[in-house]
Amino acid sequence: MQTVLNADELNESKQAPPVEGVIPVILKRWSPRSFADREVSPALLRNLFEVARWAPSSFNEQQWRFLVGRRGSATYDKIFQVLGDFNKKWARLAPVLVLDVAKSKFTQSGRDNRVAYYDLGAAASYLCLQAAALGLAAHQMEGFDTEAARKAFAIPADYIVGTVIALGYLGEPGALGDEQMIQKELAPRTRKPLTEIVYLEWGKAAEI
Amino acid sequence: MQTVLNADELNESKQAPPVEGVIPVILKRWSPRSFADREVSPALLRNLFEVARWAPSSFNEQQWRFLVGRRGSATYDKIFQVLGDFNKKWARLAPVLVLDVAKSKFTQSGRDNRVAYYDLGAAASYLCLQAAALGLAAHQMEGFDTEAARKAFAIPADYIVGTVIALGYLGEPGALGDEQMIQKELAPRTRKPLTEIVYLEWGKAAEI
Repeated sequence: MQTVLNADELNESKQAPPVEGVIPVILKRWSPRSFADREVSPALLRNLFEVARWAPSSFNEQQWRFLVGRRGSATYDKIFQVLGDFNKKWARLAPVLVLDVAKSKFTQSGRDNRVAYYDLGAAASYLCLQAAALGLAAHQMEGFDTEAARKAFAIPADYIVGTVIALGYLGEPGALGDEQMIQKELAPRTRKPLTEIVYLEWGKAAEI
Repeated sequence: MQTVLNADELNESKQAPPVEGVIPVILKRWSPRSFADREVSPALLRNLFEVARWAPSSFNEQQWRFLVGRRGSATYDKIFQVLGDFNKKWARLAPVLVLDVAKSKFTQSGRDNRVAYYDLGAAASYLCLQAAALGLAAHQMEGFDTEAARKAFAIPADYIVGTVIALGYLGEPGALGDEQMIQKELAPRTRKPLTEIVYLEWGKAAEI
């Protein structure tokens, strides 16, 4: 028989193993699918972007742009409509949907910004960490129709469409109403050992 | 007359303005060019990667790979050699150089991972935040010859070359020995106002 944890118990079970000296919120953050039926205040929402913008970017281009939809707004509906079917099933629970986008050329020189998307990922990661610090939860999605998103918001051709971030307060796993999704929600967070990702030469683990 | 701050004074001057509730290290982190002549212990270096790997990635692909060079190693020399001339001038001061790379296809399905580079940026941003938390400094660079890097390390074609991260302890600005670089080191950190990056519709600021 499936034992479903409540939101607090679940949050507890999702903590990454302690690492000495680590920024606590990095261990605390995870990407839920169940969100509580509770609005995010404008002040907290504003705080997330205040923080995200302190990410570094090449030539301090700050090429990130965020389209922010609160439930009930046209922006929210447009973002929701472009999501893939699987993501629609759970993201409907999130009170805020954010679409992030990156300018692909440097403003000053006009040359291509090779790391536009990389730096966008950094700013989005700051946003999600800060959400966790404020007791919120965030889940980034790549599963949506990027061209439909571009059309819905008339995003210029020199901007790259990034992800949709679902934001809100963590909800009960049972609210997902789908056994497969509940299983995903309860699964432990896992990561590769360092030997598989930290190299001295290609494919040869660094002994650190 | 130019007043050159020492490393501690400089660090103090680089703090971003306080934002209520923000993760302190996000305000603290910045990207210096001057590094002290002081090694980073293997334990601290290991800690950075332990933390970086807790970044989120689509389908938990963890497509990030890190080539880590400590000064005096062949790995360090190979990374240093591919840097652009401007970056060589200062990155020579850093005791550690890391080259980050992202697998561009999902391992399980074989399909293209549209957000491989975005998620690499997130992991690298965790690494740099954790560096700041440990009293280290990190500076990511896109200014290097990515194809030379690919060749030097025989990086497979299905991996995208990311950035080089210079790592170490903050040094004195004067050690840069170049007036233009010293000016950059002393310049205040600036960010765009939210009205320029947070939208309700494209180009229309969200009132949050």
